[in-house]
Amino acid sequence: MTPEEKLAELGIVLPEPKPFHPAAALGVITGNLLYLSGATPPPVNGVPWDGRVGDTYSLEEGYEAARLCAIQQIAVAKVMLGDLSRVQRVVKILGMVNCVPGFRDTPAVIHGFSEFIYEVFGERGVHARSAVGLQALPGNVPVEIETIFEIS
Amino acid sequence: MTPEEKLAELGIVLPEPKPFHPAAALGVITGNLLYLSGATPPPVNGVPWDGRVGDTYSLEEGYEAARLCAIQQIAVAKVMLGDLSRVQRVVKILGMVNCVPGFRDTPAVIHGFSEFIYEVFGERGVHARSAVGLQALPGNVPVEIETIFEIS
Amino acid sequence: MTPEEKLAELGIVLPEPKPFHPAAALGVITGNLLYLSGATPPPVNGVPWDGRVGDTYSLEEGYEAARLCAIQQIAVAKVMLGDLSRVQRVVKILGMVNCVPGFRDTPAVIHGFSEFIYEVFGERGVHARSAVGLQALPGNVPVEIETIFEIS
Repeated sequence: MTPEEKLAELGIVLPEPKPFHPAAALGVITGNLLYLSGATPPPVNGVPWDGRVGDTYSLEEGYEAARLCAIQQIAVAKVMLGDLSRVQRVVKILGMVNCVPGFRDTPAVIHGFSEFIYEVFGERGVHARSAVGLQALPGNVPVEIETIFEIS
Repeated sequence: MTPEEKLAELGIVLPEPKPFHPAAALGVITGNLLYLSGATPPPVNGVPWDGRVGDTYSLEEGYEAARLCAIQQIAVAKVMLGDLSRVQRVVKILGMVNCVPGFRDTPAVIHGFSEFIYEVFGERGVHARSAVGLQALPGNVPVEIETIFEIS
Repeated sequence: MTPEEKLAELGIVLPEPKPFHPAAALGVITGNLLYLSGATPPPVNGVPWDGRVGDTYSLEEGYEAARLCAIQQIAVAKVMLGDLSRVQRVVKILGMVNCVPGFRDTPAVIHGFSEFIYEVFGERGVHARSAVGLQALPGNVPVEIETIFEIS
């Protein structure tokens, strides 16, 4: 099954990524690596994410925000590559959680990204990662994740 | 116009980068990628940057600190490459802002870096990036930015 | 002297790295780069690291935690490469310190990693890096470090 078929089976419609600044790209290809700009979760039913994990949001909500980041990153990869089967490997992610000080469960939040990517890309989706806690993200969203893909 | 000519037009004199530790390099080349160590803004008129964006420093001051980080990174690239025209692409930056908790405008701070790099390198300067907020940077500077270049 | 011989001389026995999630790898090889997942310091005498640098832990304790992260990363590289002489260069590290707000000495903490890597790999161990302060790491450990190696 291709990643596109898997997304369809999951009922996921990829959003249309929007450029955010003339000097910055959603992603850059160099050699056989695709570096993506960090993705944040889009509004849900028109409500923007605004707060941090550990008080504003529960771990489960953070997990969902991380899953939405994965969908955003896949949407950018789709636009840049045309065909998601060009992804040979999800190489590395940096998962950043906007959270309360000393929050212990950043990995469980970022699992929302990792598990979705694995579901869509299978063994090619198994990636190196760090999952860490920050005190500020753009627009006060709870999660931002950036990805490096190996492509053909 | 070459990047060096553009810098001259802007009246920028590149500083001389200083090694900071025998075990660490200002940058490392692997294949056609140049990875730079994170840059921080140098003192202005002898006054070191010391504080965070959102209380010590305004957004505009943070933007200026980020612009100074760009000059530092270009200075390192110049020393390592000899000729800035060897830069084929600015691939990816990680922009880190030392800021108050929940600060929403980390991207606007890092624009100070992105816009300067774009001015100097043109389309080759359009890069993937994340712009996030941390609670501590070396010497309590307000911004640190690390860059990956594709080189020839 | 090979890195393995140097480790033996230092009396270091590499731990056995443990996978932490089916969707995530301890490391991923793409081309001649090896990207490792972030490493955290293991328990010492059965006592897990739990706290941040600047109050729970001193700078010296943070340095030791960073050194233990280096041993963890070398252990993963050994498992993935078989032979540490395949490391051509330690390219880049991101050193993340769980610390009190405004902590100024994140570089001195990460020196614990950099100096150990340099001791084991010599000139090939000289790397680009950033050394920054976060407010949360997995399980509230004081340091997490991720590494990119160039390999043959």
